[in-house]
Amino acid sequence: MTAPAPRPPRSRLSPEQRREQLLDLGVRLLATRPVDELSIDLLAVEAGISRGLLYHYFGNKADFHEAVVRRAADALIEQTAPPETGDPVERLAVSMTAYVDFVVANHEGYLSLVRGAAGGNPTLREIYDEALHALTDRLFTEGTRQGLLADSPRHRLVVRGWAALVEQLVLGWYDDPGGVSREELLDLVTNALLALVGTLPD
Amino acid sequence: MTAPAPRPPRSRLSPEQRREQLLDLGVRLLATRPVDELSIDLLAVEAGISRGLLYHYFGNKADFHEAVVRRAADALIEQTAPPETGDPVERLAVSMTAYVDFVVANHEGYLSLVRGAAGGNPTLREIYDEALHALTDRLFTEGTRQGLLADSPRHRLVVRGWAALVEQLVLGWYDDPGGVSREELLDLVTNALLALVGTLPD
Repeated sequence: MTAPAPRPPRSRLSPEQRREQLLDLGVRLLATRPVDELSIDLLAVEAGISRGLLYHYFGNKADFHEAVVRRAADALIEQTAPPETGDPVERLAVSMTAYVDFVVANHEGYLSLVRGAAGGNPTLREIYDEALHALTDRLFTEGTRQGLLADSPRHRLVVRGWAALVEQLVLGWYDDPGGVSREELLDLVTNALLALVGTLPD
Repeated sequence: MTAPAPRPPRSRLSPEQRREQLLDLGVRLLATRPVDELSIDLLAVEAGISRGLLYHYFGNKADFHEAVVRRAADALIEQTAPPETGDPVERLAVSMTAYVDFVVANHEGYLSLVRGAAGGNPTLREIYDEALHALTDRLFTEGTRQGLLADSPRHRLVVRGWAALVEQLVLGWYDDPGGVSREELLDLVTNALLALVGTLPD
């Protein structure tokens, strides 16, 4: 018999590193359950630490939920970042691929964010709106960066509508693909924006 | 001095007619406030009858809200009914005009239905889904009626996404038109469906 490998000592992590590690675990747990079902108890069991220590890190349940959902939204923004350069339509296609993959991989948590925000939960609404702005701002020309669209109120209106379309299409497709392949879905959500802008009067 | 015209005696109305009249009043009140702020007290004051009588008609507050929102949804379905015959695109344009006018005229109540349904209120969700189905079923060919689209899972998926787009566009336009006229908005929401279906692979 050989001795088990020694576990890395917990004390090596700073409190900030430990909190980050717990948040990452929270995001993983959120992928497969709604935010309402993400409890301090569950995280304590999964992390193998006491509830009291978790309250030390996160204050209360609401603060804990907010921190985890905010981190998941940050992950969405980061993972969907388009290439810095290249054709705007191709950059959009890269973003949309990452978006669809994120929604599939984090379905339950994403759905609960969407529903909570739409239902008027102020914290979820704020996180949702920040993420939506971050994702859609990328489409617009800003400074020297050539975007897909000039920044104008009518383009903003259409882009916000398109975002609602994309969200519904991807969540609907997840529930029932209706014979639409992942590739077809990706073409649809990308081409939809170009088609919608094309229907705008000059 | 002439005697005031006699008021029509209330007792002429059957209980069913009286309930209908109260529901109509509820829908009018719902146009300018969220469903949460539609109270039995308010309806009693506006109708000039006692709270007790209202409880007699509507049971409890939840039943009252459900009855009023259901009637408002029925009004939306009725007012957006397209002409029985004619070009499918023109029939869609007639429906969309009525839809935009309904959302503008009943903004607060409509918004609270959308938010309540999205937020997971089961009763509002059910009413919302029924209305959505009634509005979108019209687009599909059924029996001898030639619709805009053949009924297929992929068309259903796109139409559901388009409905989310339209809802967001019209509510966003109400908040801030962004220089888009009512006519332009109507063209946009109607053409959007054709454009989206056009981006579908065969």
